[in-house]
Amino acid sequence: MAEAYIFDVFGTLVDWRAGVAAEAKSFFAAKGLDVDPHEFADFWRSRYHPAMERIRNGSRGYVQLDVLHLENLDEALEEFNIAGRFTADEKQPFNHAWEKLPPWPDSIAGLSALKAHSIIAPCSNGSIALMARLAKFAALPWDAIVGADIAKMYKPQRETYLASCAALRLEPEQVMMVACHNTDLEAARDAGLKTGFFPRPHEHGPGQTRDLAPTRDWDIICADMNELAGIAGR
Amino acid sequence: MAEAYIFDVFGTLVDWRAGVAAEAKSFFAAKGLDVDPHEFADFWRSRYHPAMERIRNGSRGYVQLDVLHLENLDEALEEFNIAGRFTADEKQPFNHAWEKLPPWPDSIAGLSALKAHSIIAPCSNGSIALMARLAKFAALPWDAIVGADIAKMYKPQRETYLASCAALRLEPEQVMMVACHNTDLEAARDAGLKTGFFPRPHEHGPGQTRDLAPTRDWDIICADMNELAGIAGR
Repeated sequence: MAEAYIFDVFGTLVDWRAGVAAEAKSFFAAKGLDVDPHEFADFWRSRYHPAMERIRNGSRGYVQLDVLHLENLDEALEEFNIAGRFTADEKQPFNHAWEKLPPWPDSIAGLSALKAHSIIAPCSNGSIALMARLAKFAALPWDAIVGADIAKMYKPQRETYLASCAALRLEPEQVMMVACHNTDLEAARDAGLKTGFFPRPHEHGPGQTRDLAPTRDWDIICADMNELAGIAGR
Repeated sequence: MAEAYIFDVFGTLVDWRAGVAAEAKSFFAAKGLDVDPHEFADFWRSRYHPAMERIRNGSRGYVQLDVLHLENLDEALEEFNIAGRFTADEKQPFNHAWEKLPPWPDSIAGLSALKAHSIIAPCSNGSIALMARLAKFAALPWDAIVGADIAKMYKPQRETYLASCAALRLEPEQVMMVACHNTDLEAARDAGLKTGFFPRPHEHGPGQTRDLAPTRDWDIICADMNELAGIAGR
């Protein structure tokens, strides 16, 4: 169906909430802090889009997501009234929680099946540095890394998708964007890419209300990564 | 010895001369043309550095190596008096010869051993698109792709090495550049990177005179990729 499949990563392929909470839990335990690690992960992640928004709207130049994650970690530590408990040197490894996220059970098998006949690459807002380390941790078998760091602009801005296709020397219609987030796919379709959707109903934990179903007639709509690979391989 | 190992690819890891000659041979055979494919490969490659030089010296803006390879293919077809025998549509797949290069016998095993504990990535003048397709063909197990396409500048310009380190979120001294070309390593060392060398005495065919031995005291000097992985893993 496409020459290349490019992927949202946080949520679509890896469980960022469980991974960040597990890392946070061990950092809190080491200091004897009584903080709910899932609430902490949720707050940290809640600063994600607002931080990128300043770059999307041009009021701040491009910086890698690693920088934004670290700034957002400061905000989260303030919010939970534990900012004074971590030195700058301790916050760096804490920030690397985003490089230690478990894949969903179907992610690796599905990606590997797809890789046999197509180019696969992340089109994430994560930097090349972050994506490379996460791929090593989670065994994501990428052929290349594209996304925000290639475009120097964050999704869902149009240029992130277009620069990612160009880096792979492909036209937008030769590339399928795969995500569990409808807004990501809306932007990708507007840029001319094909679109693939499966839900991740537990990305945001037990009470998730968003992205439980497709909001449009995406080119592939399926249950998970394995099913996507099966449809793409027909 | 280093957090990441970044590699020259054409020559160091794959046998471009054999690969391009094999592709050229089949294109010539299909048209009944009597052209020596190795002589053709050598001439095509001889236009490589002159073409990049205009970009290095600023007289031309950055274009991907795929574009330069295609322009150089035109020059090579002219040189061998067969320019009229190939349409534009036929030259595109001919140009993809550079994506179908066999690895040297030790390349994959050595890279795989290194990958177990370090980040590995090409730092080539080849584009992300070219490197991704070549990696698929030759089974090069990269964690990421850095190099000219990240820096929008060709080696051995300093910024190609520095932008590659920055993309991996590493300082130059945390990164080792590995190549069978002394000039590549000279530039990498000048930029602050560690350096690793092994010779590829048949890169240019039987009569090779250059790069048969190291010209400086590189941080690792060894026989091949397997030996490099062994030293790096100590």
